[in-house]
Amino acid sequence: MKRNTARNAFYAQSGGVSAVINASACGVIETALRARRIGKVYAGRNGILGALTEDLIDVGRESPATIRGLRHTPAGAFGSARFKLKGIDQNRAEYQRLIEVFRAHDIGYFFYNGGNDSMDTALKVSQLGASLGFPITCVGVPKTVDNDLPHTDCCPGFGSVAKYVAVSTREAALDVASMARTSTRVFVLEVMGRHAGWIAAAGGLAGNGPAEPPHVILFPEVPFEQQRFLERVRECVESYGYCVIVVSEGAAYADGKFLADAGTRDAFGHTQLGGVGPLVANMVREAYGYKYHWAVADYLQRSARRLARRCGAGVCGRQGGSAAGVAGRERGHADHRAPEPAPVSLVARPCAAGGSRQQGEETAARVHP
Amino acid sequence: MKRNTARNAFYAQSGGVSAVINASACGVIETALRARRIGKVYAGRNGILGALTEDLIDVGRESPATIRGLRHTPAGAFGSARFKLKGIDQNRAEYQRLIEVFRAHDIGYFFYNGGNDSMDTALKVSQLGASLGFPITCVGVPKTVDNDLPHTDCCPGFGSVAKYVAVSTREAALDVASMARTSTRVFVLEVMGRHAGWIAAAGGLAGNGPAEPPHVILFPEVPFEQQRFLERVRECVESYGYCVIVVSEGAAYADGKFLADAGTRDAFGHTQLGGVGPLVANMVREAYGYKYHWAVADYLQRSARRLARRCGAGVCGRQGGSAAGVAGRERGHADHRAPEPAPVSLVARPCAAGGSRQQGEETAARVHP
Repeated sequence: MKRNTARNAFYAQSGGVSAVINASACGVIETALRARRIGKVYAGRNGILGALTEDLIDVGRESPATIRGLRHTPAGAFGSARFKLKGIDQNRAEYQRLIEVFRAHDIGYFFYNGGNDSMDTALKVSQLGASLGFPITCVGVPKTVDNDLPHTDCCPGFGSVAKYVAVSTREAALDVASMARTSTRVFVLEVMGRHAGWIAAAGGLAGNGPAEPPHVILFPEVPFEQQRFLERVRECVESYGYCVIVVSEGAAYADGKFLADAGTRDAFGHTQLGGVGPLVANMVREAYGYKYHWAVADYLQRSARRLARRCGAGVCGRQGGSAAGVAGRERGHADHRAPEPAPVSLVARPCAAGGSRQQGEETAARVHP
Repeated sequence: MKRNTARNAFYAQSGGVSAVINASACGVIETALRARRIGKVYAGRNGILGALTEDLIDVGRESPATIRGLRHTPAGAFGSARFKLKGIDQNRAEYQRLIEVFRAHDIGYFFYNGGNDSMDTALKVSQLGASLGFPITCVGVPKTVDNDLPHTDCCPGFGSVAKYVAVSTREAALDVASMARTSTRVFVLEVMGRHAGWIAAAGGLAGNGPAEPPHVILFPEVPFEQQRFLERVRECVESYGYCVIVVSEGAAYADGKFLADAGTRDAFGHTQLGGVGPLVANMVREAYGYKYHWAVADYLQRSARRLARRCGAGVCGRQGGSAAGVAGRERGHADHRAPEPAPVSLVARPCAAGGSRQQGEETAARVHP
């Protein structure tokens, strides 16, 4: 039974979607729909843009089966965004637009799912109350494959990537070991993790002890020393016949410069990285002439759904109202024999509420077309 | 019951090992061990090098469970090689060495598992009889992820790669679709297949019709036209909001020049390829400035075992003596609940018969240490 004083909730997500973001969304939405203090639950399409453009989905009108299906749905059913809210002082109009939309839909709760940039957005929205007199309860929902959100024990996006990287490293290393005598001696796998070496470290799960691959892991936290690196590669090739290297996209020199700076920046001003794998492979070839191969997992590692199909299933609906409560958990093993529910996508449906709403107009009826 | 006139068999494999080469090895070995006309079965370590260096394993001394375990074993349990046998006229000594080893072990049957380069080796060994008076029955066992062995219906290595590429394309494309509004608009996946577009074509299984990703597939068989390519990418971004491209490592211009020629060559003189993914991604960025990501699957696609765990299980031992009879088949679905037999590796064990054998010396007793 909802309270008469219940205010509505807004849910959205931003950043790279990962294999499990929909599972966390499922947890938030199912819990919020049951919560007495929360009235309706709206999901915003494409992150905070969904609020700014009033592109909302009244998820209470979806069937429970559709919401439950989010647990098994890859990518981001509500879309995502990389969009930086400026500070209130720098773009007051944007915040006034948020208040306008939130007031029209009586939004009192703001759930935002993502990584550190998304938590920045949640923090800024939480300042609406103090700065602009619009009280709103903001809850950050942890995601991020990088596993680097402060104050979390671990991040839901990490487990599936960690397994993907560990398994891929082991599989490729076995392949290389089979052929090293007359063919490839050095294999490099480039993985994500701009400032955090958790994903690169997961590659280390592929082996036991220094003789087993990966023989070298290059972390963003440990300054890259080319000579030391090359010597270790040669030692491995001489001792074991081959060398497997896992390198983080964020590997950097002591002065902080990334080894591979693609020269482009994203909406948050971060350098777009890519190509450190071939770069270190070439270093090795120039030094020793070893035959090499390299792979760049990029989005494959982030989106690999088969490794985390039941993410969040054990958590949805049990707890709510805190970041920890809505985070999905991951099971390491997929079960291909279980019947697979149809995945859900709400991104591509016709817009529910357009961006052209006039102030004060009744919009609830327009949320579903 | 073995015949008194039975001669022994030699089995080896070469080239990239794929997820299923051990399953085919299992089929050959189990069948050969049962065949009345075949005496002992020796596996050569690291392909034809195992014969040249007399590095042999008497697989009949392994337990049936060990041989059966090959079905579930990733990479190449007997190792592999990229080693080109020259023509008999160019290196007669090498062929005389082969005859010396084969005669010492009474080898009358030669099974060689691999792709087109391996079939070249099998062909040359088959010429021993006519050119040097040593009769030997040679059987090529098809492998190769490229699916381009002449006279085969399909190649056992292809299925697992095809599924890997199709699933990875779909997963990454869903990720891109979720974020395209404010982030990555173009995603490029580079896949294997130097001269054959089967693997690239497998990416096409990810979608239905022109609106679904992948929107563009670049084949080695279709000359690359930069302007036409760029126009199609722009059309996709304008129509669908994003564009997913699958590009074969062997994509080439009309004059046959590969788009990405890494400048190195393998033992067969083939150009080592790599990097066409970032190359076409950069073309798109330079033309339109779209934010892009790219992935290079490299060995990850070839070694991905979880997609083909039961390869060959239905075929081993049913037929023998022909390439088709020993080829493994693949099942698309892994079953993680089934207890998993321990993988088998015979590559790293101490050598069974050393390369220093003296001519005429009795070696059978030395095959197992």
